[in-house]
Amino acid sequence: MAEDFAAMVNAMPNGWVRAMGIVVTRATSDEVTCEWTVEEKHHQAYGIVHGGVHAGVIETLASIGAALVALPRGQRVVGLENNTSFIRAVRAGKLTATAHPVTRGRSSQVWEAWIRDESGALVAQGRVRLLCIAEEQKLG
Amino acid sequence: MAEDFAAMVNAMPNGWVRAMGIVVTRATSDEVTCEWTVEEKHHQAYGIVHGGVHAGVIETLASIGAALVALPRGQRVVGLENNTSFIRAVRAGKLTATAHPVTRGRSSQVWEAWIRDESGALVAQGRVRLLCIAEEQKLG
Amino acid sequence: MAEDFAAMVNAMPNGWVRAMGIVVTRATSDEVTCEWTVEEKHHQAYGIVHGGVHAGVIETLASIGAALVALPRGQRVVGLENNTSFIRAVRAGKLTATAHPVTRGRSSQVWEAWIRDESGALVAQGRVRLLCIAEEQKLG
Amino acid sequence: MAEDFAAMVNAMPNGWVRAMGIVVTRATSDEVTCEWTVEEKHHQAYGIVHGGVHAGVIETLASIGAALVALPRGQRVVGLENNTSFIRAVRAGKLTATAHPVTRGRSSQVWEAWIRDESGALVAQGRVRLLCIAEEQKLG
Repeated sequence: MAEDFAAMVNAMPNGWVRAMGIVVTRATSDEVTCEWTVEEKHHQAYGIVHGGVHAGVIETLASIGAALVALPRGQRVVGLENNTSFIRAVRAGKLTATAHPVTRGRSSQVWEAWIRDESGALVAQGRVRLLCIAEEQKLG
Repeated sequence: MAEDFAAMVNAMPNGWVRAMGIVVTRATSDEVTCEWTVEEKHHQAYGIVHGGVHAGVIETLASIGAALVALPRGQRVVGLENNTSFIRAVRAGKLTATAHPVTRGRSSQVWEAWIRDESGALVAQGRVRLLCIAEEQKLG
Repeated sequence: MAEDFAAMVNAMPNGWVRAMGIVVTRATSDEVTCEWTVEEKHHQAYGIVHGGVHAGVIETLASIGAALVALPRGQRVVGLENNTSFIRAVRAGKLTATAHPVTRGRSSQVWEAWIRDESGALVAQGRVRLLCIAEEQKLG
Repeated sequence: MAEDFAAMVNAMPNGWVRAMGIVVTRATSDEVTCEWTVEEKHHQAYGIVHGGVHAGVIETLASIGAALVALPRGQRVVGLENNTSFIRAVRAGKLTATAHPVTRGRSSQVWEAWIRDESGALVAQGRVRLLCIAEEQKLG
Protein backbone atom coordinates (compact mmCIF):
# COMPACT_ATOMS: atom_id res chain seq x y z
CA MET A 1 0.00 0.00 0.00
CA ALA A 2 1.34 3.41 -0.94
CA GLU A 3 2.82 5.49 1.89
CA ASP A 4 0.68 8.42 3.10
CA PHE A 5 2.48 11.80 3.12
CA ALA A 6 -0.52 13.94 4.15
CA ALA A 7 1.08 15.25 7.35
CA MET A 8 4.24 16.24 5.49
CA VAL A 9 2.24 17.97 2.74
CA ASN A 10 0.17 19.96 5.27
CA ALA A 11 3.39 21.16 6.90
CA MET A 12 4.78 22.62 3.66
CA PRO A 13 4.74 26.41 3.08
CA ASN A 14 1.71 26.16 0.84
CA GLY A 15 0.30 29.71 0.92
CA TRP A 16 -2.84 29.35 -1.16
CA VAL A 17 -3.86 25.99 0.26
CA ARG A 18 -3.45 27.35 3.80
CA ALA A 19 -5.21 30.63 2.97
CA MET A 20 -8.17 28.60 1.67
CA GLY A 21 -8.28 26.36 4.75
CA ILE A 22 -7.77 23.19 2.73
CA VAL A 23 -6.52 20.17 4.72
CA VAL A 24 -4.92 17.27 2.89
CA THR A 25 -6.25 14.05 4.43
CA ARG A 26 -4.39 11.51 2.29
CA ALA A 27 -1.40 11.90 -0.03
CA THR A 28 -0.10 8.83 -1.83
CA SER A 29 1.04 8.15 -5.37
CA ASP A 30 -2.32 6.37 -5.95
CA GLU A 31 -4.78 8.73 -4.32
CA VAL A 32 -4.85 12.20 -2.80
CA THR A 33 -7.76 13.56 -0.77
CA CYS A 34 -8.57 16.79 1.05
CA GLU A 35 -11.41 18.57 2.80
CA TRP A 36 -12.43 22.10 3.69
CA THR A 37 -15.36 23.95 5.20
CA VAL A 38 -16.96 26.60 3.01
CA GLU A 39 -16.51 30.15 4.32
CA GLU A 40 -17.09 33.61 2.88
CA LYS A 41 -13.54 33.64 1.47
CA HIS A 42 -14.55 30.83 -0.93
CA HIS A 43 -17.56 32.67 -2.33
CA GLN A 44 -18.12 34.54 -5.55
CA ALA A 45 -20.50 37.50 -5.73
CA TYR A 46 -23.68 35.39 -5.47
CA GLY A 47 -22.60 33.57 -2.33
CA ILE A 48 -21.69 30.26 -3.95
CA VAL A 49 -18.24 28.67 -3.96
CA HIS A 50 -16.08 30.35 -6.62
CA GLY A 51 -15.11 28.14 -9.56
CA GLY A 52 -11.50 29.09 -8.97
CA VAL A 53 -11.61 27.38 -5.58
CA HIS A 54 -12.75 24.14 -7.22
CA ALA A 55 -10.17 24.42 -10.00
CA GLY A 56 -7.51 25.21 -7.39
CA VAL A 57 -8.40 22.25 -5.19
CA ILE A 58 -8.25 19.94 -8.21
CA GLU A 59 -4.89 21.46 -9.19
CA THR A 60 -3.59 21.00 -5.64
CA LEU A 61 -4.47 17.32 -5.40
CA ALA A 62 -3.17 16.51 -8.88
CA SER A 63 0.10 18.30 -8.17
CA ILE A 64 0.64 16.47 -4.89
CA GLY A 65 -0.10 13.07 -6.41
CA ALA A 66 2.04 13.67 -9.47
CA ALA A 67 4.91 14.96 -7.32
CA LEU A 68 4.80 11.81 -5.19
CA VAL A 69 5.10 9.74 -8.38
CA ALA A 70 7.88 11.91 -9.80
CA LEU A 71 10.09 12.42 -6.75
CA PRO A 72 11.45 8.85 -6.48
CA ARG A 73 12.44 9.12 -10.17
CA GLY A 74 14.43 12.32 -9.53
CA GLN A 75 11.79 14.36 -11.34
CA ARG A 76 9.56 17.24 -10.40
CA VAL A 77 6.25 18.20 -11.98
CA VAL A 78 4.86 21.36 -13.53
CA GLY A 79 1.14 21.87 -14.14
CA LEU A 80 0.38 22.43 -17.82
CA GLU A 81 -3.39 22.36 -18.18
CA ASN A 82 -6.35 22.36 -15.82
CA ASN A 83 -9.86 21.76 -17.06
CA THR A 84 -12.68 21.77 -14.56
CA SER A 85 -16.42 21.16 -14.97
CA PHE A 86 -18.77 22.83 -12.51
CA ILE A 87 -21.70 20.58 -11.65
CA ARG A 88 -23.54 21.91 -8.61
CA ALA A 89 -23.64 25.25 -6.78
CA VAL A 90 -22.66 25.02 -3.09
CA ARG A 91 -23.12 27.75 -0.46
CA ALA A 92 -21.99 26.13 2.78
CA GLY A 93 -20.90 22.93 4.50
CA LYS A 94 -17.88 20.67 4.28
CA LEU A 95 -16.53 19.65 0.88
CA THR A 96 -14.22 16.73 0.15
CA ALA A 97 -12.14 16.02 -2.91
CA THR A 98 -10.42 12.89 -4.21
CA ALA A 99 -7.86 12.61 -7.00
CA HIS A 100 -6.67 9.53 -8.88
CA PRO A 101 -4.09 9.13 -11.65
CA VAL A 102 -5.25 8.69 -15.24
CA THR A 103 -1.70 8.20 -16.47
CA ARG A 104 1.67 8.35 -14.70
CA GLY A 105 3.99 8.43 -17.70
CA ARG A 106 7.66 9.41 -17.53
CA SER A 107 7.11 12.53 -19.67
CA SER A 108 3.74 13.64 -18.38
CA GLN A 109 0.96 12.68 -16.00
CA VAL A 110 -2.80 13.18 -15.94
CA TRP A 111 -4.76 13.19 -12.67
CA GLU A 112 -8.49 13.47 -12.29
CA ALA A 113 -10.30 14.80 -9.21
CA TRP A 114 -13.88 14.80 -7.95
CA ILE A 115 -15.29 17.26 -5.39
CA ARG A 116 -18.38 16.24 -3.39
CA ASP A 117 -20.61 17.81 -0.75
CA GLU A 118 -21.59 16.22 2.57
CA SER A 119 -24.39 14.24 0.96
CA GLY A 120 -21.96 12.77 -1.58
CA ALA A 121 -23.39 14.80 -4.48
CA LEU A 122 -20.87 15.79 -7.13
CA VAL A 123 -19.95 19.50 -7.06
CA ALA A 124 -17.11 19.71 -9.58
CA GLN A 125 -14.84 17.42 -11.55
CA GLY A 126 -11.62 18.14 -13.34
CA ARG A 127 -8.47 16.89 -14.95
CA VAL A 128 -4.92 18.22 -14.76
CA ARG A 129 -2.02 17.52 -17.14
CA LEU A 130 1.43 17.83 -15.64
CA LEU A 131 4.86 17.75 -17.20
CA CYS A 132 7.56 15.62 -15.52
CA ILE A 133 11.01 17.16 -15.72
CA ALA A 134 14.39 16.14 -14.35
CA GLU A 135 15.09 17.93 -11.04
CA GLU A 136 18.01 19.89 -12.53
CA GLN A 137 16.24 20.73 -15.81
CA LYS A 138 15.27 24.35 -16.44
CA LEU A 139 11.80 24.73 -17.94
CA GLY A 140 11.73 26.92 -21.07
CA MET B 1 -18.41 52.64 -25.81
CA ALA B 2 -19.52 50.10 -23.22
CA GLU B 3 -20.18 51.43 -19.70
CA ASP B 4 -17.54 50.57 -17.07
CA PHE B 5 -18.92 48.89 -13.92
CA ALA B 6 -15.54 48.20 -12.23
CA ALA B 7 -16.32 50.28 -9.13
CA MET B 8 -19.66 48.54 -8.67
CA VAL B 9 -18.07 45.09 -9.10
CA ASN B 10 -15.35 45.84 -6.54
CA ALA B 11 -18.03 46.88 -4.02
CA MET B 12 -19.87 43.52 -4.27
CA PRO B 13 -19.54 40.92 -1.46
CA ASN B 14 -17.06 38.87 -3.48
CA GLY B 15 -15.29 36.81 -0.82
CA TRP B 16 -12.68 34.95 -2.86
CA VAL B 17 -11.79 37.90 -5.06
CA ARG B 18 -11.32 40.08 -1.98
CA ALA B 19 -9.42 37.37 -0.09
CA MET B 20 -7.03 37.12 -3.03
CA GLY B 21 -6.53 40.91 -3.26
CA ILE B 22 -7.77 41.06 -6.84
CA VAL B 23 -8.90 44.52 -8.00
CA VAL B 24 -11.15 44.81 -11.06
CA THR B 25 -9.90 47.73 -13.15
CA ARG B 26 -12.42 47.61 -15.98
CA ALA B 27 -15.77 45.82 -16.30
CA THR B 28 -17.72 46.20 -19.52
CA SER B 29 -19.63 43.78 -21.75
CA ASP B 30 -16.66 43.94 -24.19
CA GLU B 31 -13.66 43.69 -21.88
CA VAL B 32 -12.93 42.99 -18.23
CA THR B 33 -9.53 43.57 -16.62
CA CYS B 34 -8.02 43.19 -13.16
CA GLU B 35 -4.70 43.31 -11.34
CA TRP B 36 -3.16 41.94 -8.17
CA THR B 37 0.20 41.83 -6.44
CA VAL B 38 1.60 38.37 -5.76
CA GLU B 39 1.82 37.50 -2.05
CA GLU B 40 2.46 34.33 -0.09
CA LYS B 41 -1.28 33.54 -0.11
CA HIS B 42 -1.09 33.04 -3.89
CA HIS B 43 1.76 30.53 -3.73
CA GLN B 44 1.82 26.77 -4.03
CA ALA B 45 4.44 24.71 -2.16
CA TYR B 46 7.35 25.75 -4.42
CA GLY B 47 6.74 29.49 -4.01
CA ILE B 48 5.18 30.10 -7.41
CA VAL B 49 1.65 31.35 -8.04
CA HIS B 50 -0.81 28.47 -7.64
CA GLY B 51 -2.58 27.39 -10.81
CA GLY B 52 -5.88 27.73 -8.99
CA VAL B 53 -5.27 31.45 -8.62
CA HIS B 54 -4.84 31.81 -12.37
CA ALA B 55 -7.89 29.65 -13.10
CA GLY B 56 -9.85 31.64 -10.53
CA VAL B 57 -8.86 35.01 -11.96
CA ILE B 58 -9.88 33.83 -15.44
CA GLU B 59 -13.19 32.54 -14.03
CA THR B 60 -13.77 35.86 -12.26
CA LEU B 61 -13.27 38.03 -15.34
CA ALA B 62 -15.33 35.76 -17.59
CA SER B 63 -18.18 35.70 -15.08
CA ILE B 64 -18.24 39.48 -14.74
CA GLY B 65 -18.19 40.06 -18.47
CA ALA B 66 -20.84 37.45 -19.19
CA ALA B 67 -23.06 38.79 -16.39
CA LEU B 68 -22.86 42.30 -17.87
CA VAL B 69 -24.01 40.86 -21.21
CA ALA B 70 -26.78 38.79 -19.63
CA LEU B 71 -28.26 41.25 -17.13
CA PRO B 72 -29.93 43.62 -19.66
CA ARG B 73 -31.59 40.53 -21.19
CA GLY B 74 -33.08 39.48 -17.83
CA GLN B 75 -30.63 36.57 -17.65
CA ARG B 76 -27.98 35.48 -15.22
CA VAL B 77 -24.96 33.29 -15.95
CA VAL B 78 -23.58 30.10 -14.46
CA GLY B 79 -20.02 28.91 -15.12
CA LEU B 80 -19.97 25.48 -16.76
CA GLU B 81 -16.37 24.82 -17.78
CA ASN B 82 -13.01 26.42 -17.12
CA ASN B 83 -9.90 25.36 -18.99
CA THR B 84 -6.66 27.11 -18.21
CA SER B 85 -3.17 26.71 -19.70
CA PHE B 86 -0.20 27.54 -17.49
CA ILE B 87 2.57 29.18 -19.46
CA ARG B 88 5.13 30.74 -17.15
CA ALA B 89 5.96 30.36 -13.44
CA VAL B 90 5.74 33.62 -11.46
CA ARG B 91 7.00 34.20 -7.91
CA ALA B 92 6.39 37.91 -7.27
CA GLY B 93 5.32 41.22 -8.77
CA LYS B 94 2.12 42.64 -10.14
CA LEU B 95 0.00 40.57 -12.51
CA THR B 96 -2.71 41.86 -14.82
CA ALA B 97 -5.44 39.96 -16.63
CA THR B 98 -7.71 40.84 -19.54
CA ALA B 99 -10.81 38.98 -20.75
CA HIS B 100 -12.69 39.28 -24.03
CA PRO B 101 -15.81 37.53 -25.31
CA VAL B 102 -15.45 34.68 -27.83
CA THR B 103 -19.20 34.34 -28.17
CA ARG B 104 -22.11 36.08 -26.42
CA GLY B 105 -24.98 33.81 -27.48
CA ARG B 106 -28.41 33.81 -25.85
CA SER B 107 -27.97 30.26 -24.54
CA SER B 108 -24.30 30.32 -23.61
CA GLN B 109 -21.22 32.50 -23.69
CA VAL B 110 -17.48 31.87 -24.01
CA TRP B 111 -14.93 34.33 -22.65
CA GLU B 112 -11.18 34.08 -22.97
CA ALA B 113 -8.65 35.67 -20.61
CA TRP B 114 -4.92 36.32 -20.65
CA ILE B 115 -2.74 36.88 -17.57
CA ARG B 116 0.55 38.76 -17.97
CA ASP B 117 3.42 39.80 -15.72
CA GLU B 118 4.88 43.31 -15.44
CA SER B 119 7.07 42.80 -18.51
CA GLY B 120 4.04 41.81 -20.57
CA ALA B 121 5.05 38.14 -20.73
CA LEU B 122 2.16 35.68 -20.84
CA VAL B 123 1.71 33.76 -17.57
CA ALA B 124 -1.56 31.88 -18.16
CA GLN B 125 -4.41 31.79 -20.62
CA GLY B 126 -7.85 30.27 -20.35
CA ARG B 127 -11.37 29.99 -21.58
CA VAL B 128 -14.63 29.78 -19.67
CA ARG B 129 -18.01 28.52 -20.92
CA LEU B 130 -21.04 29.97 -19.18
CA LEU B 131 -24.72 29.11 -19.39
CA CYS B 132 -27.23 31.97 -19.70
CA ILE B 133 -30.47 31.31 -17.85
CA ALA B 134 -33.61 33.38 -17.27
CA GLU B 135 -33.47 35.17 -13.90
CA GLU B 136 -36.40 33.19 -12.49
CA GLN B 137 -35.22 29.81 -13.93
CA LYS B 138 -34.02 27.16 -11.49
CA LEU B 139 -30.91 25.34 -12.68
CA GLY B 140 -31.33 21.54 -12.61
CA MET C 1 -31.74 -1.93 -16.98
CA ALA C 2 -31.54 0.86 -19.54
CA GLU C 3 -32.73 -0.02 -23.06
CA ASP C 4 -30.00 -0.47 -25.68
CA PHE C 5 -30.46 1.65 -28.83
CA ALA C 6 -27.16 0.71 -30.53
CA ALA C 7 -28.81 -0.76 -33.64
CA MET C 8 -30.95 2.34 -34.07
CA VAL C 9 -27.97 4.65 -33.64
CA ASN C 10 -25.90 2.71 -36.21
CA ALA C 11 -28.76 3.05 -38.72
CA MET C 12 -28.84 6.87 -38.47
CA PRO C 13 -27.35 9.03 -41.26
CA ASN C 14 -24.23 9.70 -39.26
CA GLY C 15 -21.71 10.71 -41.92
CA TRP C 16 -18.54 11.17 -39.89
CA VAL C 17 -19.09 8.13 -37.69
CA ARG C 18 -19.69 5.99 -40.77
CA ALA C 19 -16.76 7.50 -42.68
CA MET C 20 -14.51 6.63 -39.74
CA GLY C 21 -15.80 3.06 -39.51
CA ILE C 22 -16.98 3.48 -35.93
CA VAL C 23 -19.56 0.92 -34.76
CA VAL C 24 -21.68 1.69 -31.71
CA THR C 25 -21.91 -1.49 -29.62
CA ARG C 26 -24.10 -0.23 -26.79
CA ALA C 27 -26.23 2.90 -26.45
CA THR C 28 -28.14 3.47 -23.23
CA SER C 29 -28.72 6.49 -20.99
CA ASP C 30 -26.15 5.00 -18.55
CA GLU C 31 -23.39 3.83 -20.88
CA VAL C 32 -22.41 4.11 -24.53
CA THR C 33 -19.67 2.03 -26.14
CA CYS C 34 -18.16 1.69 -29.60
CA GLU C 35 -15.28 0.05 -31.44
CA TRP C 36 -13.29 0.57 -34.62
CA THR C 37 -10.26 -0.88 -36.35
CA VAL C 38 -7.42 1.54 -37.05
CA GLU C 39 -6.84 2.22 -40.75
CA GLU C 40 -4.82 4.74 -42.70
CA LYS C 41 -7.76 7.16 -42.67
CA HIS C 42 -7.37 7.52 -38.90
CA HIS C 43 -3.68 8.42 -39.06
CA GLN C 44 -1.89 11.73 -38.76
CA ALA C 45 1.38 12.37 -40.62
CA TYR C 46 3.49 10.09 -38.38
CA GLY C 47 1.23 7.07 -38.79
CA ILE C 48 -0.44 7.23 -35.40
CA VAL C 49 -4.14 7.74 -34.76
CA HIS C 50 -5.00 11.44 -35.17
CA GLY C 51 -6.06 13.21 -31.97
CA GLY C 52 -9.16 14.43 -33.78
CA VAL C 53 -10.33 10.84 -34.16
CA HIS C 54 -10.11 10.31 -30.41
CA ALA C 55 -11.81 13.64 -29.66
CA GLY C 56 -14.49 12.78 -32.24
CA VAL C 57 -15.15 9.33 -30.81
CA ILE C 58 -15.50 10.84 -27.33
CA GLU C 59 -17.84 13.51 -28.73
CA THR C 60 -19.90 10.83 -30.50
CA LEU C 61 -20.44 8.67 -27.43
CA ALA C 62 -21.22 11.62 -25.16
CA SER C 63 -23.74 13.01 -27.68
CA ILE C 64 -25.52 9.68 -28.01
CA GLY C 65 -25.75 9.13 -24.27
CA ALA C 66 -26.88 12.68 -23.54
CA ALA C 67 -29.48 12.50 -26.33
CA LEU C 68 -30.92 9.30 -24.87
CA VAL C 69 -31.27 11.09 -21.52
CA ALA C 70 -32.78 14.21 -23.08
CA LEU C 71 -35.23 12.71 -25.58
CA PRO C 72 -37.80 11.37 -23.06
CA ARG C 73 -37.85 14.88 -21.54
CA GLY C 74 -38.69 16.49 -24.89
CA GLN C 75 -35.18 17.95 -25.08
CA ARG C 76 -32.32 17.71 -27.51
CA VAL C 77 -28.63 18.26 -26.79
CA VAL C 78 -25.95 20.46 -28.28
CA GLY C 79 -22.23 19.88 -27.63
CA LEU C 80 -20.61 22.90 -25.98
CA GLU C 81 -17.11 21.83 -24.96
CA ASN C 82 -14.86 18.84 -25.63
CA ASN C 83 -11.62 18.36 -23.78
CA THR C 84 -9.54 15.32 -24.56
CA SER C 85 -6.26 14.07 -23.09
CA PHE C 86 -4.01 11.98 -25.29
CA ILE C 87 -2.29 9.24 -23.32
CA ARG C 88 -0.74 6.68 -25.66
CA ALA C 89 0.15 6.64 -29.36
CA VAL C 90 -1.55 3.85 -31.35
CA ARG C 91 -0.71 2.73 -34.89
CA ALA C 92 -2.97 -0.26 -35.53
CA GLY C 93 -5.44 -2.69 -34.04
CA LYS C 94 -8.92 -2.48 -32.66
CA LEU C 95 -9.86 0.32 -30.28
CA THR C 96 -12.83 0.42 -27.94
CA ALA C 97 -14.39 3.36 -26.15
CA THR C 98 -16.79 3.63 -23.23
CA ALA C 99 -18.69 6.69 -22.02
CA HIS C 100 -20.50 7.29 -18.72
CA PRO C 101 -22.45 10.29 -17.43
CA VAL C 102 -20.80 12.64 -14.92
CA THR C 103 -23.98 14.68 -14.57
CA ARG C 104 -27.37 14.48 -16.31
CA GLY C 105 -28.89 17.80 -15.25
CA ARG C 106 -31.92 19.37 -16.90
CA SER C 107 -29.90 22.32 -18.21
CA SER C 108 -26.66 20.59 -19.15
CA GLN C 109 -24.93 17.23 -19.05
CA VAL C 110 -21.32 16.08 -18.74
CA TRP C 111 -20.18 12.73 -20.10
CA GLU C 112 -16.74 11.21 -19.79
CA ALA C 113 -15.23 8.63 -22.16
CA TRP C 114 -12.22 6.35 -22.12
CA ILE C 115 -10.56 4.86 -25.22
CA ARG C 116 -8.49 1.67 -24.82
CA ASP C 117 -6.44 -0.58 -27.06
CA GLU C 118 -6.77 -4.35 -27.36
CA SER C 119 -4.56 -4.92 -24.29
CA GLY C 120 -6.81 -2.64 -22.23
CA ALA C 121 -4.21 0.15 -22.07
CA LEU C 122 -5.65 3.67 -21.96
CA VAL C 123 -5.19 5.59 -25.23
CA ALA C 124 -7.21 8.75 -24.63
CA GLN C 125 -9.69 10.13 -22.15
CA GLY C 126 -12.03 13.07 -22.42
CA ARG C 127 -15.03 14.93 -21.17
CA VAL C 128 -17.85 16.62 -23.09
CA ARG C 129 -20.26 19.29 -21.82
CA LEU C 130 -23.62 19.41 -23.56
CA LEU C 131 -26.48 21.86 -23.35
CA CYS C 132 -30.03 20.48 -23.05
CA ILE C 133 -32.62 22.55 -24.90
CA ALA C 134 -36.35 22.15 -25.45
CA GLU C 135 -37.04 20.50 -28.83
CA GLU C 136 -38.74 23.63 -30.22
CA GLN C 137 -36.15 26.09 -28.82
CA LYS C 138 -33.87 27.89 -31.24
CA LEU C 139 -30.26 28.08 -30.08
CA GLY C 140 -28.86 31.64 -30.09
CA MET D 1 8.79 36.34 -42.81
CA ALA D 2 8.41 32.71 -41.86
CA GLU D 3 8.76 30.18 -44.69
CA ASP D 4 5.53 28.55 -45.90
CA PHE D 5 5.57 24.71 -45.94
CA ALA D 6 1.90 24.21 -46.94
CA ALA D 7 2.71 22.31 -50.14
CA MET D 8 5.08 19.97 -48.28
CA VAL D 9 2.50 19.34 -45.55
CA ASN D 10 -0.24 18.54 -48.07
CA ALA D 11 2.06 15.99 -49.70
CA MET D 12 2.61 14.05 -46.47
CA PRO D 13 0.83 10.70 -45.88
CA ASN D 14 -1.74 12.33 -43.64
CA GLY D 15 -4.61 9.85 -43.71
CA TRP D 16 -7.25 11.60 -41.62
CA VAL D 17 -6.59 15.04 -43.04
CA ARG D 18 -6.85 13.64 -46.57
CA ALA D 19 -9.94 11.54 -45.75
CA MET D 20 -11.62 14.69 -44.44
CA GLY D 21 -10.69 16.76 -47.53
CA ILE D 22 -8.78 19.32 -45.50
CA VAL D 23 -6.30 21.43 -47.50
CA VAL D 24 -3.53 23.27 -45.67
CA THR D 25 -3.23 26.74 -47.20
CA ARG D 26 -0.41 28.13 -45.08
CA ALA D 27 2.09 26.41 -42.78
CA THR D 28 4.65 28.54 -40.99
CA SER D 29 5.99 28.63 -37.44
CA ASP D 30 3.82 31.74 -36.85
CA GLU D 31 0.54 30.78 -38.48
CA VAL D 32 -1.11 27.74 -40.00
CA THR D 33 -4.34 27.87 -42.01
CA CYS D 34 -6.55 25.38 -43.84
CA GLU D 35 -9.89 25.12 -45.57
CA TRP D 36 -12.42 22.43 -46.44
CA THR D 37 -15.87 22.14 -47.94
CA VAL D 38 -18.51 20.52 -45.76
CA GLU D 39 -19.75 17.17 -47.06
CA GLU D 40 -21.85 14.36 -45.62
CA LYS D 41 -18.71 12.72 -44.22
CA HIS D 42 -18.31 15.66 -41.82
CA HIS D 43 -21.83 15.43 -40.40
CA GLN D 44 -23.16 14.01 -37.17
CA ALA D 45 -26.64 12.48 -36.99
CA TYR D 46 -28.49 15.82 -37.24
CA GLY D 47 -26.70 16.94 -40.40
CA ILE D 48 -24.37 19.45 -38.78
CA VAL D 49 -20.59 19.29 -38.77
CA HIS D 50 -19.43 16.79 -36.13
CA GLY D 51 -17.56 18.31 -33.19
CA GLY D 52 -14.78 15.81 -33.78
CA VAL D 53 -14.10 17.37 -37.17
CA HIS D 54 -13.61 20.77 -35.54
CA ALA D 55 -11.46 19.34 -32.76
CA GLY D 56 -9.46 17.41 -35.38
CA VAL D 57 -8.88 20.44 -37.58
CA ILE D 58 -7.68 22.43 -34.57
CA GLU D 59 -5.40 19.52 -33.58
CA THR D 60 -4.05 19.34 -37.14
CA LEU D 61 -3.13 23.02 -37.39
CA ALA D 62 -1.60 23.14 -33.91
CA SER D 63 0.49 20.04 -34.63
CA ILE D 64 1.81 21.42 -37.91
CA GLY D 65 2.71 24.78 -36.40
CA ALA D 66 4.35 23.27 -33.33
CA ALA D 67 6.30 20.79 -35.49
CA LEU D 68 7.65 23.63 -37.64
CA VAL D 69 8.86 25.34 -34.46
CA ALA D 70 10.35 22.14 -33.03
CA LEU D 71 12.06 20.67 -36.09
CA PRO D 72 14.91 23.23 -36.37
CA ARG D 73 15.66 22.52 -32.69
CA GLY D 74 15.97 18.77 -33.31
CA GLN D 75 12.70 18.17 -31.50
CA ARG D 76 9.39 16.61 -32.43
CA VAL D 77 6.02 17.30 -30.84
CA VAL D 78 3.33 15.13 -29.28
CA GLY D 79 -0.21 16.39 -28.65
CA LEU D 80 -1.14 16.23 -24.97
CA GLU D 81 -4.46 18.05 -24.61
CA ASN D 82 -7.10 19.40 -26.95
CA ASN D 83 -9.95 21.55 -25.71
CA THR D 84 -12.45 22.83 -28.20
CA SER D 85 -15.48 25.10 -27.79
CA PHE D 86 -18.34 24.70 -30.25
CA ILE D 87 -19.91 28.04 -31.09
CA ARG D 88 -22.16 27.74 -34.12
CA ALA D 89 -23.80 24.82 -35.95
CA VAL D 90 -22.84 24.56 -39.63
CA ARG D 91 -24.50 22.36 -42.26
CA ALA D 92 -22.75 23.26 -45.51
CA GLY D 93 -20.30 25.58 -47.23
CA LYS D 94 -16.60 26.22 -47.02
CA LEU D 95 -14.92 26.50 -43.63
CA THR D 96 -11.54 28.03 -42.91
CA ALA D 97 -9.35 27.69 -39.85
CA THR D 98 -6.38 29.68 -38.56
CA ALA D 99 -3.96 28.75 -35.79
CA HIS D 100 -1.48 30.93 -33.91
CA PRO D 101 1.00 30.11 -31.15
CA VAL D 102 0.17 31.04 -27.56
CA THR D 103 3.55 29.84 -26.33
CA ARG D 104 6.49 28.17 -28.12
CA GLY D 105 8.52 27.02 -25.11
CA ARG D 106 11.32 24.46 -25.30
CA SER D 107 9.40 21.94 -23.16
CA SER D 108 5.89 22.49 -24.44
CA GLN D 109 3.86 24.64 -26.80
CA VAL D 110 0.29 25.93 -26.86
CA TRP D 111 -1.47 26.82 -30.11
CA GLU D 112 -4.90 28.29 -30.48
CA ALA D 113 -7.13 27.93 -33.56
CA TRP D 114 -10.30 29.57 -34.82
CA ILE D 115 -12.71 28.04 -37.37
CA ARG D 116 -14.97 30.39 -39.35
CA ASP D 117 -17.69 30.01 -41.98
CA GLU D 118 -17.85 31.86 -45.31
CA SER D 119 -19.42 34.93 -43.67
CA GLY D 120 -16.58 35.11 -41.17
CA ALA D 121 -18.77 33.95 -38.26
CA LEU D 122 -16.97 31.92 -35.61
CA VAL D 123 -17.87 28.22 -35.69
CA ALA D 124 -15.43 26.71 -33.18
CA GLN D 125 -12.38 27.70 -31.22
CA GLY D 126 -9.83 25.58 -29.43
CA ARG D 127 -6.45 25.23 -27.83
CA VAL D 128 -3.91 22.42 -28.03
CA ARG D 129 -1.03 21.72 -25.65
CA LEU D 130 1.91 19.84 -27.16
CA LEU D 131 5.00 18.33 -25.61
CA CYS D 132 8.36 18.99 -27.30
CA ILE D 133 10.73 16.03 -27.11
CA ALA D 134 14.19 15.38 -28.49
CA GLU D 135 14.01 13.46 -31.78
CA GLU D 136 15.68 10.39 -30.28
CA GLN D 137 13.73 10.46 -27.00
CA LYS D 138 11.21 7.71 -26.34
CA LEU D 139 7.96 8.95 -24.85
CA GLY D 140 6.89 7.05 -21.69
